[in-house]
Amino acid sequence: MNLGNRYGSHRVLAPEGALPKAATRLDAQTPPLDNEIGIRVKALHITSTSFVRIWQDSDNNEERFASIMLDIVKRQGKFQDPATGSGGVLLGTVDFVGPALKVDLSPGDQIVTMVSLALTPLRLERVIEINQPFGQVEVDGYAILFESGLWAKLPEDMPPHLAMMALDVAGAPAFAAKYVHAGQRVLVVGGGKAGLLCLHEAKKRAGVTGQVILVEKDEARAQLALSLGLADDVIVADAGNGLEVMRKVEEATGGALADISFNCASLPNTEMSTILATREDGRIVFFSMATDFSRAALGAEGAGRPVEMIIGNGYLPGHAQIALQVLRENQPLRDFFSGLLPKS
Amino acid sequence: MNLGNRYGSHRVLAPEGALPKAATRLDAQTPPLDNEIGIRVKALHITSTSFVRIWQDSDNNEERFASIMLDIVKRQGKFQDPATGSGGVLLGTVDFVGPALKVDLSPGDQIVTMVSLALTPLRLERVIEINQPFGQVEVDGYAILFESGLWAKLPEDMPPHLAMMALDVAGAPAFAAKYVHAGQRVLVVGGGKAGLLCLHEAKKRAGVTGQVILVEKDEARAQLALSLGLADDVIVADAGNGLEVMRKVEEATGGALADISFNCASLPNTEMSTILATREDGRIVFFSMATDFSRAALGAEGAGRPVEMIIGNGYLPGHAQIALQVLRENQPLRDFFSGLLPKS
Repeated sequence: MNLGNRYGSHRVLAPEGALPKAATRLDAQTPPLDNEIGIRVKALHITSTSFVRIWQDSDNNEERFASIMLDIVKRQGKFQDPATGSGGVLLGTVDFVGPALKVDLSPGDQIVTMVSLALTPLRLERVIEINQPFGQVEVDGYAILFESGLWAKLPEDMPPHLAMMALDVAGAPAFAAKYVHAGQRVLVVGGGKAGLLCLHEAKKRAGVTGQVILVEKDEARAQLALSLGLADDVIVADAGNGLEVMRKVEEATGGALADISFNCASLPNTEMSTILATREDGRIVFFSMATDFSRAALGAEGAGRPVEMIIGNGYLPGHAQIALQVLRENQPLRDFFSGLLPKS
Repeated sequence: MNLGNRYGSHRVLAPEGALPKAATRLDAQTPPLDNEIGIRVKALHITSTSFVRIWQDSDNNEERFASIMLDIVKRQGKFQDPATGSGGVLLGTVDFVGPALKVDLSPGDQIVTMVSLALTPLRLERVIEINQPFGQVEVDGYAILFESGLWAKLPEDMPPHLAMMALDVAGAPAFAAKYVHAGQRVLVVGGGKAGLLCLHEAKKRAGVTGQVILVEKDEARAQLALSLGLADDVIVADAGNGLEVMRKVEEATGGALADISFNCASLPNTEMSTILATREDGRIVFFSMATDFSRAALGAEGAGRPVEMIIGNGYLPGHAQIALQVLRENQPLRDFFSGLLPKS
């Protein structure tokens, strides 16, 4: 059998010896090997940090956005934002399942990949449509999943694009499910897609004796979280302003600050407000792909604040089920997201 | 009384609203306020990642190195490597203790700062001497410590420059003391200063039923760790090569991989080897200031490896005492470091 490396190193064209995430160029042309999955790609869900950045660079122009995307994929053989290093996930139809793989998957199955586009060999024939509010892009393309690659079959009880959105940010609710305990004061920074799913799970776990607080710059988004019952308190503030956020969280918690915080911001430079708003010996999980390691590490040291800081994302077993379950449990949240989908 | 902000925001010149670490320019000219400490600076210990980078940029030339340093401090009012965002710590004599501070400190005391130079207002009159093997620079200068700033008095039982080195990397042995348990398989990536202190603490905690493994590119450094009894096994390999490191750690552990790993590398792109060499449900603490958030987050996801990844550095109470204690407990290690000090 013609087997590739489990982690995809055989598809790295440059630099030599790199793994696919660190690679500058992947081979997306060679047909899938006997331990790979080939996927006809229908849509991409772009990570919020990257979508926001490229959308700004495109002056909110769809054609420019499409041409930047096509250019990135052509040059790199994968969709990875050169500025932030992040990617997203894809939705497609299984075209080929390598005979060496023992997986419950057949050609024709619809799946979403649960590994980042930043390491997924991809070629794009064309960009069909851009859904800006949702951060999704309809495309024609072909992708390869390595033996180690994670994927999830599309559930039958929700639209594919809704499921793809939830699966892209699956880490956030899964980490909330793992780390939030009853009675805790929970802070979520950023009320985007990841933030809203995270809030649902945090609220459920912290329960009636807990307190869930959202910090969000956009007044409408903050009100949405309140009206959906996802937060006990919202603080409308720029998370780039550490001292202001700290003061307001102090106020909201009677001086106690947060026991555990989830940073789900789309924009950079929100590490410090999360650190200052979290109590001593508290815990922070960073999901924002705009997180800067040294700002977090030296920021906590500079403030003399002993907090356990965890690199979110990554992989937590069961994260796909947890993320989809949020949309099953919370009809108002599901209705809100569904309203952002194209009507087709 | 003339009080500044506890976290130093009053000394930020640009950009507006930033905190000192994120600032591009700090005011290092205003004399210390009533809740600040003023320090006559004698030496800087540069974080390894920054020292290596600037030393390379200087073509190993001391004068060029000095002029790059002076230029950075003049422009920013602090020593923060613009490329990596990291700094280091300083050694100096207390010149002024703000009357609003309740601290056991008097003018004339010798201290090392325990917050990064990346957020410490500093002016430099001159660079006197550079100690390349140790990553330290003798200077004449003046620095300000904010109310939240951490510091440690110099111990009486070791040379100041030795203590400063240990205090700069105090997080690494302190996190090892906190997280390593008896019987664990421990991996340390990078056998520099942080790595060696971390190894000592890991060996002590993992004990006779554990296994401590060092991955280090430099053969001489690897042998040093073995001969000092700091590691049970050393793997001479480039930590930039994830698959090779994984295979060798698999070999060394009979396929089990590491229960807990500490990344103390000075060079970038070592996240993946640390992830691949750590077992499922294991834990990784990243100390390297060259760590990239998205490489770590998406790398673990890409490999489908559920590991808890912690942002090291930061602040752990007692880290100064733990780091200095390593040098008291381990005479051979202390002798090795002492050999790198100038003979004066």
